[in-house]
Amino acid sequence: MAEMRAFQIPGWQSAPVFNQVPVPTPGPGQVLLKVSAVGLCHTDIALPSYPADFASQLNWKVPFTLGHEISGTVAALGAGATGVEIGDAVVASAANPCGSCWYCLRGKDQNCVVTSGRGYGDDGGLAEYVIVTSPRQLVSIGDLDPVIAAPLADAGATAYHGVNRVLHKLTPDTTAVVIGTGGLGGYAVQFLHLLSGAHVIAVEPNEQRRELALKLGADEAIDGVDEGTVAAIKERTGGRGADVVLDFVGVDATISAGVQATARGGSYGVVGAAGGSLPSQQGWFHDLPRDGEVFTYQGSSVNELRGVISLAQRGLLQSPIVEFPFDQLEDAYAQFGAGTLTGRAVIRMPAGE
Amino acid sequence: MAEMRAFQIPGWQSAPVFNQVPVPTPGPGQVLLKVSAVGLCHTDIALPSYPADFASQLNWKVPFTLGHEISGTVAALGAGATGVEIGDAVVASAANPCGSCWYCLRGKDQNCVVTSGRGYGDDGGLAEYVIVTSPRQLVSIGDLDPVIAAPLADAGATAYHGVNRVLHKLTPDTTAVVIGTGGLGGYAVQFLHLLSGAHVIAVEPNEQRRELALKLGADEAIDGVDEGTVAAIKERTGGRGADVVLDFVGVDATISAGVQATARGGSYGVVGAAGGSLPSQQGWFHDLPRDGEVFTYQGSSVNELRGVISLAQRGLLQSPIVEFPFDQLEDAYAQFGAGTLTGRAVIRMPAGE
Amino acid sequence: MAEMRAFQIPGWQSAPVFNQVPVPTPGPGQVLLKVSAVGLCHTDIALPSYPADFASQLNWKVPFTLGHEISGTVAALGAGATGVEIGDAVVASAANPCGSCWYCLRGKDQNCVVTSGRGYGDDGGLAEYVIVTSPRQLVSIGDLDPVIAAPLADAGATAYHGVNRVLHKLTPDTTAVVIGTGGLGGYAVQFLHLLSGAHVIAVEPNEQRRELALKLGADEAIDGVDEGTVAAIKERTGGRGADVVLDFVGVDATISAGVQATARGGSYGVVGAAGGSLPSQQGWFHDLPRDGEVFTYQGSSVNELRGVISLAQRGLLQSPIVEFPFDQLEDAYAQFGAGTLTGRAVIRMPAGE
Amino acid sequence: MAEMRAFQIPGWQSAPVFNQVPVPTPGPGQVLLKVSAVGLCHTDIALPSYPADFASQLNWKVPFTLGHEISGTVAALGAGATGVEIGDAVVASAANPCGSCWYCLRGKDQNCVVTSGRGYGDDGGLAEYVIVTSPRQLVSIGDLDPVIAAPLADAGATAYHGVNRVLHKLTPDTTAVVIGTGGLGGYAVQFLHLLSGAHVIAVEPNEQRRELALKLGADEAIDGVDEGTVAAIKERTGGRGADVVLDFVGVDATISAGVQATARGGSYGVVGAAGGSLPSQQGWFHDLPRDGEVFTYQGSSVNELRGVISLAQRGLLQSPIVEFPFDQLEDAYAQFGAGTLTGRAVIRMPAGE
Repeated sequence: MAEMRAFQIPGWQSAPVFNQVPVPTPGPGQVLLKVSAVGLCHTDIALPSYPADFASQLNWKVPFTLGHEISGTVAALGAGATGVEIGDAVVASAANPCGSCWYCLRGKDQNCVVTSGRGYGDDGGLAEYVIVTSPRQLVSIGDLDPVIAAPLADAGATAYHGVNRVLHKLTPDTTAVVIGTGGLGGYAVQFLHLLSGAHVIAVEPNEQRRELALKLGADEAIDGVDEGTVAAIKERTGGRGADVVLDFVGVDATISAGVQATARGGSYGVVGAAGGSLPSQQGWFHDLPRDGEVFTYQGSSVNELRGVISLAQRGLLQSPIVEFPFDQLEDAYAQFGAGTLTGRAVIRMPAGE
Repeated sequence: MAEMRAFQIPGWQSAPVFNQVPVPTPGPGQVLLKVSAVGLCHTDIALPSYPADFASQLNWKVPFTLGHEISGTVAALGAGATGVEIGDAVVASAANPCGSCWYCLRGKDQNCVVTSGRGYGDDGGLAEYVIVTSPRQLVSIGDLDPVIAAPLADAGATAYHGVNRVLHKLTPDTTAVVIGTGGLGGYAVQFLHLLSGAHVIAVEPNEQRRELALKLGADEAIDGVDEGTVAAIKERTGGRGADVVLDFVGVDATISAGVQATARGGSYGVVGAAGGSLPSQQGWFHDLPRDGEVFTYQGSSVNELRGVISLAQRGLLQSPIVEFPFDQLEDAYAQFGAGTLTGRAVIRMPAGE
Repeated sequence: MAEMRAFQIPGWQSAPVFNQVPVPTPGPGQVLLKVSAVGLCHTDIALPSYPADFASQLNWKVPFTLGHEISGTVAALGAGATGVEIGDAVVASAANPCGSCWYCLRGKDQNCVVTSGRGYGDDGGLAEYVIVTSPRQLVSIGDLDPVIAAPLADAGATAYHGVNRVLHKLTPDTTAVVIGTGGLGGYAVQFLHLLSGAHVIAVEPNEQRRELALKLGADEAIDGVDEGTVAAIKERTGGRGADVVLDFVGVDATISAGVQATARGGSYGVVGAAGGSLPSQQGWFHDLPRDGEVFTYQGSSVNELRGVISLAQRGLLQSPIVEFPFDQLEDAYAQFGAGTLTGRAVIRMPAGE
Repeated sequence: MAEMRAFQIPGWQSAPVFNQVPVPTPGPGQVLLKVSAVGLCHTDIALPSYPADFASQLNWKVPFTLGHEISGTVAALGAGATGVEIGDAVVASAANPCGSCWYCLRGKDQNCVVTSGRGYGDDGGLAEYVIVTSPRQLVSIGDLDPVIAAPLADAGATAYHGVNRVLHKLTPDTTAVVIGTGGLGGYAVQFLHLLSGAHVIAVEPNEQRRELALKLGADEAIDGVDEGTVAAIKERTGGRGADVVLDFVGVDATISAGVQATARGGSYGVVGAAGGSLPSQQGWFHDLPRDGEVFTYQGSSVNELRGVISLAQRGLLQSPIVEFPFDQLEDAYAQFGAGTLTGRAVIRMPAGE
């Protein structure tokens, strides 16, 4: 029986380790991928330290292999699996939607209640092979570099979903604000620029990131968030406020500024999981953007991932990436966790058999 | 110069009084209405007690005539006013949208930034005649009883707007919850029943109102809001939660229950101005309905008022109303303020010249 | 090996016959249904007479079992099939969408390019058992009579799709016209009545059907289509025309009247496959409803079928049905083909093993 | 009384001439513009040759001044006109929507039934001054060159409306086809490129226009329409067809190819008024794009014109223009009519008093 190396969580509140495990066999309807590349995510770092009681609520069994931003090639098909062929280059959706529930039938599989996935509860992509439970979760990438494709599965597609759900408001005489333009926010700036006629304002305290945001398509970039941010946005929008604010930070200060800077009828979305909220001033009836919406979400649909891959295949997306080989994975996580990288950390897996 | 009686706010923090004032003359593009009926609103009662500094911010001059739920007949047209004819029976929109701004051009005139209106800042309908600044703000009512029509301008149309903006989510296998089914909430139950295939749940502590809600079209009515409300809604929705929750109360308890009872992808709207908010539990990223929306608003568009009037004209709306003659207006306000009325208080104006 | 009776097309241009065939075994991911009821459809009658060259284009092999409006209970699950349990009462979608393509991922599986299905190319439901290729194609019906449920899979859901795609236009001050209110059109009248605030006009030459249309929710019913139909609709809509016209006949005369009666910005949909078109008058730029849409389609999504079943489960749909036992199937087709039935013909399958 | 030169239709079936006419005075609610520039349009050339009976149906009185693509500065305000100030630089909408009807209240004023406008029935912009009936029809242009702004009122905004109504379908993994990329089609290519993630294909027989289309944002340009066009589009879209086809030619051949090249669920729009239609093959049920839409329209909303102007103000639109002074107007029409110009013909009016 063939074996492979896998980077696994051995037990809750334990550092992940390399284990030697059997190469899995795809069950009925499943697909076995030979992994090409895996993007690293903050969730990977947080998972091992989950409190045991939370972990048990999730009903995830340890050990499991980390890695949920996965590109690869189809290596084997389970009985009855159709729609992909051996050798196809693909990216796998970051989640594991069932395909049949109320949400999945509507193409809103980002809301499917399946609570485990490849790399969180089920075995993920930081191994030579990974099981994908349905071909429906795979998006063809063709000649796109799998190292570029991998982080688009989560970082790219999550940013895309936030933009996608507000695009209908972003006619040319509107304004969209992105708070925090590193990582996901940088993708959001690009999607807003590529897919809408809105005037795009980046709000970002880091000067280099502000400069990058301008290159990625922001029309202007302002330093913030601070006490002048709301006034600055109002001033730039003729007093009306921004039609869309996407907040990739999500602390109290960014939420407060973002909501106040949102125009009547506008949308404020908090994507950053920093735990902030809106301290009540006069109550929601007065505090929320009038006739607007406040929203949050996680992830994206497979359909949205297809949109992101399409843009990347046509060379329209810039993805700052720092690439590591699989045997430097622990070093990659260390640098990633330290916040010293200038791009998304992606592991390129060994090419051979 | 002809005179008329008008029920006016004489100064801030003063009780309203009947004054004898000139019958106004419509300016260019304006319309003079002979008032048929006026619905009373909680705002009318609150206005006279506004703090002077808030009033000065609004830049409203006193005295002005109260009354913003107005039906009447066209009595005179200003120069260049077109689209209505002398004698037309109409209802006037509760707000005074400009017709030309970013919002009005999109048919979203509920968000027009004009901050005064007939009955709040400008002279309202509690007089024999009232000026309407544009024919665009008038909706023909034909043979509909003007006493029925008047409260639809605000109470009816505001409830309608809340339903209208979430209708696209309310396919037949969904659930809509209305919290608080007196007044506006009772209209909302009717609109949900008439315009969607959703299963409608009324949440209401008052037994008679629960019974009324069932007659108005609710599929079931539960006592609440209390600690069991969220579980009760989850149980009735297969665990998924409600796709739409419209909260016509708006205290902390209803907001908290409403948000928690909202399904992934669902909408929670707070229409009641009771000043509540959502005390943070784990931060908005976790507290808000996942991939859903939280919203508030005031009023409606003229276009939406047309929809409401259309339903009323066809006899599809029930409007519990307690009618008073103009000269019992002060008594009407007293009973209305005491909360002892079993329907909406509406003043029928004298018919003659 | 167990056998069962199946009503099959033995070869192209041959009348269908009862054959004794093996009970099928579900493959990976598939579901075996014990059939409860099957609705008969005009397509069933047309299929055997397809020209051989058209049949070969479709690449369908004969023999196959007829019947695509199928309700039943889950009898067996193939390897890896999840989401339903043995004994569940269900209806199967009339089509066989793949679940993974561009359309299916968007919840628009009515457009999936899979060109065969149960009863047209693959074995259908006119047998004791039938294979469903994925649990995703099954909708739970609970206690709903399977004889009621079966024809909803196609006749009901197809009518629903036509209504569903235009619902967003049907605010209360609009008008919807249904041309031809037998069969699918009768369902359409009900959906329009239940799910919108539109004024509904039935256009139908048969007096009994006009009376039925009024009972099903039409606000009025007019005799037609003839040379006065367009004027009659214009007159009833203040000259503006109908916002939606759904044409369940589809001959030149109904298409011409329907398009002319459609308001600016309105929708005209041809659902009836009678082969009509619009003879050019001044060219499409002038002939089509200005800023409106003209559309056609076949079938519905699984998601839409769920909506229909939800309405039926709540007792909101009327379904005139003439029920036949399986061994009177040929008689049922004969009466159905003769057009003498007063309701939809549905076969109730024997209950036992 | 001040006079001015105006280029007028003196009577039906007569060539337009320069007349000396009084400078008009704005009535209540109206605005007087000092004209800055006027774009010439094919309609201007067609109008004088309208048959007398058609003209009388329209109920237009002659003489009237030509010119409906008008930019200018506010010179005087009628009584009660608000929202603009003397000296504001503006462009006037090409149509004359009433602002109050069913359509205007919804922001769909392109469908307002007012059938005359500045330059067609009412006095247009080919004069020193022109009356605009409502400030609602004016869009501020700020520092934008009025010669650039003028043709955007009709040529630009009409192309925009076609794109705007299909944008919601144009996610990144879709394809949009523009047939005929001179004039309006060239604007459409730009809007598709700027406002969507769709792959844009220009179909155009003229080589220089194909090259220009690529510069304006088309991803590829193919020679056509001919017998290979449908196959070429199918090939470039993986066999699925184009999600959107906008046809700025509108002859039988382009309509037939466009409809056939449209994907299931897609949109085919005919904008070109060349009088073509779709000769029936198998009837609309089979001939039209399955579950798609076929549409046509004229003009745009004021709201859409704002979007166009916003893009132009930010320097995102390219507008090939050939500029003429007012006193060379007849020469401009002659060259325009001859089809020898390489850009849109625009008259720059004399700047002085």
